[in-house]
Amino acid sequence: MGEASRAEGGGEIAFRPDAPLILDSGARIEGLALAYRTFGALDPDRSNAILVCHALTLDQHLAGRHPATGRPGWWSSLVGPGLPMDPARHFIIGTNVVGGCMGSTGPSSIDPGTGRPYGLTFPVVTIADMVRAQERLVTALGIERLLAVVGGSMGGMQALQWAVSYPERLFAAVCIAGAARHSAQNIALHEVGRQAIMADPDWRGGNYAAEGARPEKGLAVARMAAHITYLSEAALQRKFGRELQRDGLSWGFDADFQVESYLRHQGASFVDRFDANSYLYITRAMDYFDLSAGRAGGLAEAFAAARDVRFCVIAFTSDWLYPTAESRAVVRALNAAGARASFVEIDTDKGHDAFLLDEPVLRAAVGGFLDSAALARGRA
Amino acid sequence: MGEASRAEGGGEIAFRPDAPLILDSGARIEGLALAYRTFGALDPDRSNAILVCHALTLDQHLAGRHPATGRPGWWSSLVGPGLPMDPARHFIIGTNVVGGCMGSTGPSSIDPGTGRPYGLTFPVVTIADMVRAQERLVTALGIERLLAVVGGSMGGMQALQWAVSYPERLFAAVCIAGAARHSAQNIALHEVGRQAIMADPDWRGGNYAAEGARPEKGLAVARMAAHITYLSEAALQRKFGRELQRDGLSWGFDADFQVESYLRHQGASFVDRFDANSYLYITRAMDYFDLSAGRAGGLAEAFAAARDVRFCVIAFTSDWLYPTAESRAVVRALNAAGARASFVEIDTDKGHDAFLLDEPVLRAAVGGFLDSAALARGRA
Repeated sequence: MGEASRAEGGGEIAFRPDAPLILDSGARIEGLALAYRTFGALDPDRSNAILVCHALTLDQHLAGRHPATGRPGWWSSLVGPGLPMDPARHFIIGTNVVGGCMGSTGPSSIDPGTGRPYGLTFPVVTIADMVRAQERLVTALGIERLLAVVGGSMGGMQALQWAVSYPERLFAAVCIAGAARHSAQNIALHEVGRQAIMADPDWRGGNYAAEGARPEKGLAVARMAAHITYLSEAALQRKFGRELQRDGLSWGFDADFQVESYLRHQGASFVDRFDANSYLYITRAMDYFDLSAGRAGGLAEAFAAARDVRFCVIAFTSDWLYPTAESRAVVRALNAAGARASFVEIDTDKGHDAFLLDEPVLRAAVGGFLDSAALARGRA
Repeated sequence: MGEASRAEGGGEIAFRPDAPLILDSGARIEGLALAYRTFGALDPDRSNAILVCHALTLDQHLAGRHPATGRPGWWSSLVGPGLPMDPARHFIIGTNVVGGCMGSTGPSSIDPGTGRPYGLTFPVVTIADMVRAQERLVTALGIERLLAVVGGSMGGMQALQWAVSYPERLFAAVCIAGAARHSAQNIALHEVGRQAIMADPDWRGGNYAAEGARPEKGLAVARMAAHITYLSEAALQRKFGRELQRDGLSWGFDADFQVESYLRHQGASFVDRFDANSYLYITRAMDYFDLSAGRAGGLAEAFAAARDVRFCVIAFTSDWLYPTAESRAVVRALNAAGARASFVEIDTDKGHDAFLLDEPVLRAAVGGFLDSAALARGRA
C-alpha cells in the first residue's frame, strides 16, 4: 500500500451564497458549509467512494482520531485497514449533517443576514435536506455514483433516503439499526429530550449562544434519557445490575448505584461536545422522517425508483428503539418494489448501540455485502 | 345489600409522637400521619379486609370519586359492586404511602421540629418502611390478619414486602405488574426523572415549598419520561401513530404530533397533583427495593417465612418496565420456598399500565384468586 491509500482529507466546503440549499420546508440556507473528512483515495474511475452517514450525536470523524476528544473515530470497528470499509481500497467520506454542530451549518452558526447565531431562526431541516446537502458535497468531490451509502440509526435513515432521492447516484445502500419512519414511541422519546432542553432557563428561548449562556442541565437530562434507549435492558443489567458506587446506600440522592453514576457521566460529558439547539433540530428531522408519507402506495412506492440499488438491511434483536420489525417492513417494501435486498438480523442482547460495537457478525455482514457490491459493479 | 355494605370511611390517622416509626435507615419519623380511605364494612369476624397498595403516583382514592380531580378512583375496574374487590363483601383499605403527598407524612409535610416543610431533611424511606407504616394502620383498624394485600406496580412490590415482613398478618398477596427488585434499567429511568427535577432551578435544593417556588418544568419532564415507560410501543403506535395535531407540519418545535401533545398534557396535569420531592423519595424507595438483598439464599430465602401466604402473581406480556421475566423469577422463588403461587401471564399489547385498565382477564384472575382465598379461609 502506498501513501495515497492511507491518505486523509477533508475540511470544510462552503457553497456559493447564490446557490442556496432549498429545504423541504421551502426555506433556504445561503452559504451552506459542510464539514467533512475523507479516508483513502478516489480511484481513477471514481467507483470506490463510500459515503458514511452519522447518527444523531455523531459526526464526520468516523475513523482516525477525533480532534476534540482524541479518541478513535466512532466507526473504528468497521472503517480501517482490513475492515469492511478500508482506506486502502475505498474512498470513505464522512460529513457532519446540516443542522449539526461539528462544522456544518446549523443553529449555532452565524446567520450571515444578522451576524448573530441563528438559534431558533435556523430553518427546520429534514433527513431529505441532510441528504440534499450531502449530494452537493459528493458532486463537488467529483463523484457521479457512489459505491455505497452506509449508515447506522439516523445514518441508516439517510442511506434509505439517498436511494429514494438520488437512486442513480448510488450503487448500494446499507441501513443498520434504522427505520423508514419514526414511530410514536420514537417521537415521544425525542419530545422528552426537547422538553428537558427547553425547560432549562439557560436555553433562553434558543438564544443562549448570543446571550452567553448554555442549557447544560437540560441537555444532560436529554442525553441521559436517550442513552437508556441505546442499550437493552439485559445489557444494562449485565453491565451494572444493582452494583453500588460505594459500600452501602447513601440514604439520599447521591449516585448510589453504578448505573446512576454512569448515566450522570454520559450527561455531563455530552454537554461538552454537543450543542443543545442542534439536538432539537436533528431530533426534529428524525421525527419528521417517514419515507411513505404522502404516497398512496406506501413504502414500496417510495422505493420504486430505487429498484436498481442493492440494499443491505441489518437489525439487532434487542434494539427496542428501532425494533427489527421496522427493518423487516423496509425489506418487505424493497421486495415489493422489486429491489435486491439482503436482510441480516443479528442476535445480540446489546441493544441499539450494537451498531457502534465490534460485532463480528456485523463486520462480516457489511464486509460481505460491500465486497459483493464492488464485484457486481465490476471492481475486483 | 344494606347501607353498611356501601359504607365509606377513612381520613387521617396520626400516631403518637412517642411511638415514632423507625425506618430501615435508622432514622425515625415522629408523629407519623397516614391518609387512608375505606370502602365497605369490616365483618364481625374481621376476616374480609383487603389492603390495596398504590403505585408511584397514585393514592388512597382507589374507588369512589377523587376529591381533587372529581374523577373515578384509579382502580374502579377492580373495586366496586360486582367486581373482584366489592364493598358489599370486602372491607377495602387504601392508604397513601409514607413519603407521599396525598395526606400521609412526606417531604412536603411540616417538620414538627422546625415548623417548616421537611424538604430534603425528610428521611429516605423504603418499600419496607411504607409497609411498616401500613401495618400500624391495619392494627389501628383492629385487623389482625388481612384477607389479602393487593397492588400493582409499586403496589405489587408492597404486597410482596408485606408477605416477607409480616407473613402472619395476611392470608394472601396479589402482585400485579411488579417485581422483587428494581433492575438497572428501572433505576436508570428513575434517575432521569430525578435529575430532571433537580435540574429545575425552582427546585431550590429541595426547599421550594419554604421558598414559595415549584419545580413544575422539571417535574413535568420527569413525568413525560416515565409515562412513555407505562405504555408499550404498540399501544403508542395504535393510539397515536404519526397523526398530526393540525393539517401539515409546523416546521418548528410546537407539538406537531398528537403523541407530543398527549405527553405535554401528561406532564402539565401531573404537576397540579403531585409533589416533586415526593417523586424523588418514592422513586428512591423503589430503586432501593431488592427483596433478595443481603440473603445468601436469594429471593427464595426471603420468601421462606411466607410459605403459608397464598400468592397470585400477574404480569403483562408487553410490560417492558417490569417484564414478565421479573414476575417469573418471583414465582420460581415462591415455588422454591414452598409457597402456593398462581401465575397469570396476560397477553396484551397495552404495556405496564394495563394493570389500571378494564382488562377482563385481569378482572377474572384477581376475582378468582380472591374468591378462592376467601373460601380457603372459610368464608362462603
